[in-house]
Amino acid sequence: MMLDELRRHVCEANLALKRTGLVFQTWGNASAVDPDRKWVCIKPSGIAYDRMTPEDMVITDLEGIPVEGSLRPSVDLASHLALYRAFPEIGGIVHTHSHYATCFAQARRELPCLGTTHADYFEGSVPLVSPPSRDEVAEDYEGNTGSCIVKALSGGSPLRRPAALVAGHGPFVWGATVEQAVENAGVLEELARMAFHTFSLEPDAPPLEAYLLAKHFQRKHGSQAYYGQEG
Amino acid sequence: MMLDELRRHVCEANLALKRTGLVFQTWGNASAVDPDRKWVCIKPSGIAYDRMTPEDMVITDLEGIPVEGSLRPSVDLASHLALYRAFPEIGGIVHTHSHYATCFAQARRELPCLGTTHADYFEGSVPLVSPPSRDEVAEDYEGNTGSCIVKALSGGSPLRRPAALVAGHGPFVWGATVEQAVENAGVLEELARMAFHTFSLEPDAPPLEAYLLAKHFQRKHGSQAYYGQEG
Amino acid sequence: MMLDELRRHVCEANLALKRTGLVFQTWGNASAVDPDRKWVCIKPSGIAYDRMTPEDMVITDLEGIPVEGSLRPSVDLASHLALYRAFPEIGGIVHTHSHYATCFAQARRELPCLGTTHADYFEGSVPLVSPPSRDEVAEDYEGNTGSCIVKALSGGSPLRRPAALVAGHGPFVWGATVEQAVENAGVLEELARMAFHTFSLEPDAPPLEAYLLAKHFQRKHGSQAYYGQEG
Amino acid sequence: MMLDELRRHVCEANLALKRTGLVFQTWGNASAVDPDRKWVCIKPSGIAYDRMTPEDMVITDLEGIPVEGSLRPSVDLASHLALYRAFPEIGGIVHTHSHYATCFAQARRELPCLGTTHADYFEGSVPLVSPPSRDEVAEDYEGNTGSCIVKALSGGSPLRRPAALVAGHGPFVWGATVEQAVENAGVLEELARMAFHTFSLEPDAPPLEAYLLAKHFQRKHGSQAYYGQEG
Repeated sequence: MMLDELRRHVCEANLALKRTGLVFQTWGNASAVDPDRKWVCIKPSGIAYDRMTPEDMVITDLEGIPVEGSLRPSVDLASHLALYRAFPEIGGIVHTHSHYATCFAQARRELPCLGTTHADYFEGSVPLVSPPSRDEVAEDYEGNTGSCIVKALSGGSPLRRPAALVAGHGPFVWGATVEQAVENAGVLEELARMAFHTFSLEPDAPPLEAYLLAKHFQRKHGSQAYYGQEG
Repeated sequence: MMLDELRRHVCEANLALKRTGLVFQTWGNASAVDPDRKWVCIKPSGIAYDRMTPEDMVITDLEGIPVEGSLRPSVDLASHLALYRAFPEIGGIVHTHSHYATCFAQARRELPCLGTTHADYFEGSVPLVSPPSRDEVAEDYEGNTGSCIVKALSGGSPLRRPAALVAGHGPFVWGATVEQAVENAGVLEELARMAFHTFSLEPDAPPLEAYLLAKHFQRKHGSQAYYGQEG
Repeated sequence: MMLDELRRHVCEANLALKRTGLVFQTWGNASAVDPDRKWVCIKPSGIAYDRMTPEDMVITDLEGIPVEGSLRPSVDLASHLALYRAFPEIGGIVHTHSHYATCFAQARRELPCLGTTHADYFEGSVPLVSPPSRDEVAEDYEGNTGSCIVKALSGGSPLRRPAALVAGHGPFVWGATVEQAVENAGVLEELARMAFHTFSLEPDAPPLEAYLLAKHFQRKHGSQAYYGQEG
Repeated sequence: MMLDELRRHVCEANLALKRTGLVFQTWGNASAVDPDRKWVCIKPSGIAYDRMTPEDMVITDLEGIPVEGSLRPSVDLASHLALYRAFPEIGGIVHTHSHYATCFAQARRELPCLGTTHADYFEGSVPLVSPPSRDEVAEDYEGNTGSCIVKALSGGSPLRRPAALVAGHGPFVWGATVEQAVENAGVLEELARMAFHTFSLEPDAPPLEAYLLAKHFQRKHGSQAYYGQEG
C-alpha cells in the first residue's frame, strides 16, 4: 500500500467519524497501519474537520518516529502504537468520546451483551479498562493508556471483541482495516445507547443466553457464516 | 400482482425503513407475499441500502425455495415464512432492531397500552415472545423464531395487534400490506419510546382505561370508524 | 377576516406542527376562529401533510355545522369547539401527541414550573385533566373531552396558562391566535422535555421560587413588560 | 477593534448559538467587549434569528448606557456587564437555556468532572449559583444575577472554569473571546448531557481522579501544552 493511499483511507475514516456524529468538536482520531506494518498514519492534533485533507495526515513508524508530514500527530498516537505492536490482526484504530460509550466509561461499567444486536458484532462484553496510575501518567500517559488496553485483552482475540472502554475516558475501537474500525465504533455507540435505555427500563436486565450469543456471532463471523453475500 | 411490482413494493419498503431511521447499518428487512400467496419477496442479506434496487430483491415460494434472484435472501426469511403460512391476513412483514422497541425486548418486557396513541393502532399490549430454545436454535433458528411468534399470537387476530417483541432480539411487525407493516413499525418505535419515557417518569404508570382503549381503536378501525376520509 | 385568509393561517399552522416535529404521522390538528367568532376552521381528518393545501381546510360554525369544504373535519373538532365557546380570549387551538408532553399525560402528572424557562410562558403549572368517564365517552367523546378541559380551567385566565394535559391522551394548547398556539405547543414540548430530564436527575427537584416565577412572567407578559421590542 | 467588527463578531456568535441548537426560540444571547473595555456589544431583545444582522446589535458602555443602535438590548445585559466589570480576562459571554445544562440548574446540582472530556475544558466542577433573593430581584434582577455569579467565582480564575449554572434558570458561559464563549457553551451542553446519562446509569459515578483531571487540563491549556498545533 502506497503512503498516499494510506493517507486517503485515514483521512476518509476521520471525516466519517465526524459525519456520523461519533466525534464532537475534535474529540477523536482514526489511524491505520500499512500491510507490512512499517508505517502508521494518523490524524493531526486539534485540526478542524472541515479543512482536513489527506495531505494533513501524519506518518510515523511503529515507534512513533515522524516519517512524513509537517503537522503534529494526534496526542493519542502512543496509545494506537501500543495496540499495533501487540496485535498483528489490528489494521486500523479509532478513538472517540462518542456519547453513550463514554457514559459507560464514566460510570465505570463494562458493556455486557444484552441482545442479538450486540452478538452480531462482539463475542461477549466490551471490557472496562482501568486508567494508568499516577506514576504511569507522569511517565508516559498516552503510551501507558495503550498498554493498559493491551493487558486487558491478553489471551483473547482482539477482532472478536474489537473495543475497550477506558474508565473515566472513553472508547478505543479497532478492526482488520480502519474502515471496519469506523463501522465498529458506530455499532459500539448504538449498542451502548441500547444498553443504557435497557438498563434504565430494567436495571436487572439479563445478559443474552450464551447459545443465542454464539449463534448470532457465528452465523455472521464463523467459518460456516451464512449472513451476507459471501462465505 | 406481477413479480416486478412485488419487487418494487418490497424494495421501497426496505428503503423506507432506512430513510425513517428504523434501520441502522443493515439491521432489518421487509418482505411481502403476493395476493395469491404463492410468492414471497424479501430483501437480500447484508446489502447496503444506498445501492439497493428492485432487481436485487429475492423471490421464493412459501417454503423458501428460490424462484428468482441471484442473491441470498435475508437470513430471517424463514421467520417471515412461518408467519405468512400461519396467517392469511398478513400481506407484509418487517423486522428491525429499532432502538426503543429493541430495548423493551432486551429488558424482557411487553409493551403495554399506556395511552390513546397506542390504542389508535394496537388493540392491547404488544406481546413479548420467548426466543427458541437451545435445541430449536440448533435445528432451525430462524424458522423456530417464526414459530415462537405464531404460537404467541394463536387465538388472536394478527391485524389487531400487528407486532411482537422477541426477547433479547427485537420487533417483528406486519400488516395487510408491506406499506402498512412499515407504518406499523414506525408507530411501534414511537410507542416504545413514549412508554420508555413514561415509565422513567412514573414506574407505576397505569394502563389506559379499557373503555378509552376500545373507543380509540374502534373510531379508527371498527365497523363504525369515523377517523379519516373513508369508511 | 375572510375565510380564505383563515384557511391559509390554519393550513400553515398545521404544516408548522409537522415541520417542527410536534406531529408524527397525522397525530395532531390546529384550528382557528375568526375574529367575529362565527366560523371555525380546522384540519381535515387523516390527511397526509405533504399534500395539504388551504383548500382542504374545513369550515364549520361554533356548533360544528359544516359551512364549507368537502372533507371531514378532524375527529377532535368538538373538543376545540368547547374551548372556543367557553373562552372568548382563545383565537387558536392546537392538539398534538408531542412526545414528552404526552409522556406526562400518560404518567398522569401535571407539569410543574421548575425554572425560568417555564415562567417565561406559563404563570404556573400546566394542569392534568381527567379524561371523560365511560358514559361521557359513549355520549360524546370528543365534546366531553373539551368540557373536561373547560372545567379544569374554570376561574383562571386561559391565556396565562395556555395548555392542559388530558390524562392518558396528550396536550391541548391555545393562544390569542393560532400562530401563538403553535408557538406555545413547541414551548410546552421543550418544557416537558426539560422537566422530564430534571426529574430523572433529581426526583425531588423543587418548583421555582414564586417571586422568580412572577418576575419572569411579568417582565415578558405584564403591563410593565420590558422583554422584546414592544410594550 | 472598530465597532463594526464588534457587531459582526457578536451577530455571528448569536447566529452560531441558534445554528448549533443551543438556543430554542429566542432563549439566549451573546455579547463581547472591545479590547479597550470601553464598549459592550449585545444581541437586541426578543428578535428572531432568521432576520438578525450586525446592524441590529446594540452598543452600550460598561454601565449599560446606550451608545449606538435603535433597538433595546437583551434584558440580560446587566448580568453580562457585572461579569465584564469584575473580570478583565473575559472578552465574551453567552447565556442560553441549553437543554441539559438547564436541567442541572433546575435540579439544583453543580456539574462535577466525571471524565477526561470535561477535564479538557474545565479545571473542576461547574458551580451552581444561588439566584438573587426576593429583595435583590425587586431592586435589580438582572444586575444582581450577575453579582451572584461574580461572588461565586471570587478567588478563582474565570477562564479555568468558564461557566456557571444559575439555579432554577440556566447556564452563563464565557471566554477570552466571544467565539471561545460559544465553543465553551457547546462543550458545556455536551458535558451536561454526558453527566446526565452517566448519573442515570450509575447514580454514584465517581469524579475523575485528580491526577487525570490535571493531566488533561494541562496537556491542552498548561504552559507545556502539547495538544493541537501551537504552543
